[in-house]
Amino acid sequence: MPEFNAPLRDMRFVLHEVFEAPALWARLPALADHVDADTADAILEEAAKVTGQLIAPLNRSGDEEGAQWLAGKVSTPKGFKTAYDTYIEGGWVGLSGNPVFGGLGMPKMLAVQFEEMLYGANSSFALYSALTSGACLAIDAHASDALKGTYLPPMYEGRWAGSMCLTEAHAGTDLGIIRTRAEPLPDGSFTLNGSKIFITGGDQDLTENIIHLVLAKLPDAPAGPRGISLFLVPKVLVNDDGSLGHGNALSCGSIEHKMGIKASATCVINFDGARGWLIGEANKGLAAMFTMMNYERLSIGIQGIGCAEASYQNARTYARERLQSRAPTGAVAPDKVADPIIVHPDVRRMLLTIKAMTEGGRAFASYVGQQLDLAKFSADPQEQQTASALVALLTPVAKAFFTDTGFDSCVLGQQVLGGHGYIREWGQEQLVRDVRIAQIYEGTNGIQALDLLGRKVIANGGVTLRLFTAQIRDFAARPDKPYASELLEAVQRLEDVSDWLQTRAMTNPNETGAACVEYLHLFGYVAYAWLWARMADVAQRSLDADPTFYSAKLATARFYFSRLLPRTLSLEQAIRAGCASLFELDAASF
Amino acid sequence: MPEFNAPLRDMRFVLHEVFEAPALWARLPALADHVDADTADAILEEAAKVTGQLIAPLNRSGDEEGAQWLAGKVSTPKGFKTAYDTYIEGGWVGLSGNPVFGGLGMPKMLAVQFEEMLYGANSSFALYSALTSGACLAIDAHASDALKGTYLPPMYEGRWAGSMCLTEAHAGTDLGIIRTRAEPLPDGSFTLNGSKIFITGGDQDLTENIIHLVLAKLPDAPAGPRGISLFLVPKVLVNDDGSLGHGNALSCGSIEHKMGIKASATCVINFDGARGWLIGEANKGLAAMFTMMNYERLSIGIQGIGCAEASYQNARTYARERLQSRAPTGAVAPDKVADPIIVHPDVRRMLLTIKAMTEGGRAFASYVGQQLDLAKFSADPQEQQTASALVALLTPVAKAFFTDTGFDSCVLGQQVLGGHGYIREWGQEQLVRDVRIAQIYEGTNGIQALDLLGRKVIANGGVTLRLFTAQIRDFAARPDKPYASELLEAVQRLEDVSDWLQTRAMTNPNETGAACVEYLHLFGYVAYAWLWARMADVAQRSLDADPTFYSAKLATARFYFSRLLPRTLSLEQAIRAGCASLFELDAASF
Repeated sequence: MPEFNAPLRDMRFVLHEVFEAPALWARLPALADHVDADTADAILEEAAKVTGQLIAPLNRSGDEEGAQWLAGKVSTPKGFKTAYDTYIEGGWVGLSGNPVFGGLGMPKMLAVQFEEMLYGANSSFALYSALTSGACLAIDAHASDALKGTYLPPMYEGRWAGSMCLTEAHAGTDLGIIRTRAEPLPDGSFTLNGSKIFITGGDQDLTENIIHLVLAKLPDAPAGPRGISLFLVPKVLVNDDGSLGHGNALSCGSIEHKMGIKASATCVINFDGARGWLIGEANKGLAAMFTMMNYERLSIGIQGIGCAEASYQNARTYARERLQSRAPTGAVAPDKVADPIIVHPDVRRMLLTIKAMTEGGRAFASYVGQQLDLAKFSADPQEQQTASALVALLTPVAKAFFTDTGFDSCVLGQQVLGGHGYIREWGQEQLVRDVRIAQIYEGTNGIQALDLLGRKVIANGGVTLRLFTAQIRDFAARPDKPYASELLEAVQRLEDVSDWLQTRAMTNPNETGAACVEYLHLFGYVAYAWLWARMADVAQRSLDADPTFYSAKLATARFYFSRLLPRTLSLEQAIRAGCASLFELDAASF
Repeated sequence: MPEFNAPLRDMRFVLHEVFEAPALWARLPALADHVDADTADAILEEAAKVTGQLIAPLNRSGDEEGAQWLAGKVSTPKGFKTAYDTYIEGGWVGLSGNPVFGGLGMPKMLAVQFEEMLYGANSSFALYSALTSGACLAIDAHASDALKGTYLPPMYEGRWAGSMCLTEAHAGTDLGIIRTRAEPLPDGSFTLNGSKIFITGGDQDLTENIIHLVLAKLPDAPAGPRGISLFLVPKVLVNDDGSLGHGNALSCGSIEHKMGIKASATCVINFDGARGWLIGEANKGLAAMFTMMNYERLSIGIQGIGCAEASYQNARTYARERLQSRAPTGAVAPDKVADPIIVHPDVRRMLLTIKAMTEGGRAFASYVGQQLDLAKFSADPQEQQTASALVALLTPVAKAFFTDTGFDSCVLGQQVLGGHGYIREWGQEQLVRDVRIAQIYEGTNGIQALDLLGRKVIANGGVTLRLFTAQIRDFAARPDKPYASELLEAVQRLEDVSDWLQTRAMTNPNETGAACVEYLHLFGYVAYAWLWARMADVAQRSLDADPTFYSAKLATARFYFSRLLPRTLSLEQAIRAGCASLFELDAASF
């Protein structure tokens, strides 16, 4: 059975050396007392133990057994409940939660490393608490003090979980057409009726309660997305003293049979007059839900990185051990029947591709984490505002680019094992199946791309984009920075294409949708180029301190610039081809 | 449950209009009496019925149930045996088999269309007879008349099946290190001992007998690939009169649990003193096995096309029916709650990408089929020799490019369905799992790429490549051909890169492996460009006869040239980056 070991040295490299996070934390009052380099390292080490020793061993058995639904109740696979109890004792669910309600108040930059470990160890297990953390964020941001006081503490503890109830059978991407109804009750609460599908962790046997955040329409609501409200609907009603009361009028109608994440229950949840409480303002539920959704989008992006890292570890081990054929330049293990396959150029190409994309992704996730921390904790309004804008711009990139390339990485990691990658025993095929959903849920990657190009770039007039590219230009303009000319060329390409699209979209609204997926990938490759240049910069300066570690970073950066960044050429050309060739066929001629 | 309908109109277009196959058949004596346009159409229509109505309905239930192994015996899922009996009654197994032994002697160009339908309907089912057809080919080409007379007739009938026993636990790509041994017996037969893994259809309950073609080493065999011999080893020994005798000393030790093709039994076969007969010359077994292997490589390539076609049909249906959001240019179905998602540019991009790659692949497969027919049946030695050379060049491209892009297409087809693509009910996720193996078995796609660039291009001094590119140049040079300048640019790029690699590989043998996968893709995109130009040429000339059909071809060609062919730019740049960045890390630093 494959092992999972959190890449602690790489995480410390990104956190402490590339982003110098401890210096940032020291100047942010809300963090200064909570966390420094040593605390962060201790947390990461403990997280590595929990994920590697407690949670990863349940990954394959969880896939084989799957979540089960019987007589309206979900049971998780053997071992999940015990592991979950130990896991929440460590306080992990509230790691970056609000300390006022029992959260640990840790920075997001640290939390993203933990999330990567959790998804790498066991994506299904990770989802049960990932939804809780996001639900807490939305409650904390938008709910009344009474709701916060009642619900947040047991949720941060992990005793209660959260869920996110958006999709209905006829309404996925298009939430404006949902049918779930909420009627006001005299006491200010509401009664909900409707049916939601694809609810991750909508039922399970891990927690005492599940707090559903539900999108529904009030009786007088306007049509479309401006008529949606957000409700807090607990599985078990909560008494005034915080103890559990009666079951609410809702039930789990069935669970889905899926390609992967089989140990995660994906539920149909029926609300049959269930009692709920409004979160935030009436008819402004979509905006409130987006607090949770943006959290989950980054989190799901990180699933892509975590799975790719796990696949890489397995592929690397196999490539070092599997003996097959001789190196093209002559035997390197003449005493053995054949050479380890890591001598073969194409095996190295596959491994380096995964490595470069995974480490680039880790750095990008940490950068987004840094901006989230600045947006939340900075005392400087200008800095705070810039960071918020960057988070809005980069969240769809993180979600879609991490998961598109994370999926590709898992497929490559499977390919390294040949036939052994296709059978279940080695775990590689499960990673492909598990990571595949990340390109779909929390808004398909096509929707992310539309959000990026349409709302975050074009509708924004490219203002935030320029904030981002200015940082890349600043870096490249400083003396002695590696890959400065390659970076400037790449960032110029991104800016030119963005300007071109801005103009084109004015003449034909279809241009945005026609270009957006390639645009998001172009954006991602340019961003990773910047991060690889930053990593190479640090590695160059630190080389003598640990030549093995830092020279590997320099080599991977060279690989990225010479073999992967050229993908931007084709992306640009496909974008500039425009939308015309997409609209020559009518629907019947497909 | 998804339906599968063979794309008959498209197949006739390729066969009759693009390649004018009936005219070719008429001038080849071995085919002229067997087949004309009407026969071909009748066969295709019957094939469409068999695959669509008999075999496709077992695809999902076969996946759910899987092949089972109990007490040393394999049973196939419910319905397989009955369907198989009906299937072989139609004579499909011997469709292109040698008429001397009961085959139908049909051209390969026709057989590739049938194979596509079979894989599109049910990949697991298809494999049980795909191996038989390939085994027959190797027996027919290399075995003694006695063996041919005994084994080929029941195999062409489908009463007996074939299998291909190469891989051992420690030897997959590297067959030179196999350990299975064959000892001569006084009567000229041999006794075999050893264990083979990953044997597709190594056991099943569909046929009376299974004829294993087994690679093994004779006692005095030289080490490595030049010391391998090929043996025919029946599951049940055959009496002199052709009736079945005792079971042979071999057994199925277990079957694999896999990501997909679950209804296809992937077996461990143990040979414990089993009796076998030499096929061809001693120590020249690998060459003989390659007759089967090359057959299977094209066949497995076609699995990529068939699965992509099936995925496309499901995605197209869904995209026309699923209502979600409004078209960017305004509602097209204002009377409905939302527009069908086929109005969205990115959904069209996904569908058109699958369509362009699948139809391009179908044309390429037909072209390879045409060359196989010429190599087998042409009376002109020059034509025969050119065709054989082209088959050798193009087989690895067909295997790897069809399956790499077929996998991508199935992933896109799944993406069109969003969350519904991830659950089992809609069948899209099964296609992704089923097609994934095609990039791995019959030689991984990395091995195909090495074969293409190393053996078929570089070792051949580019001679055959020039035969191929000359055909493209000839086409583009004729008056009024569509996309002539794009084609000339593309073919020049392929030739330049080939020349560059030829020179580089002399200075460093690692250059071949470093470039080969990107090179194969570059080759594939250029070849498809030629085939799309040919299809557009025919469509242009025929437009008035059926404007709907032919204008769809023209539109898809435009999409291919504007949005997909640009991928060659990045491929070229990655190739020209060379192997240096792959060899900076030592194995321990990965």
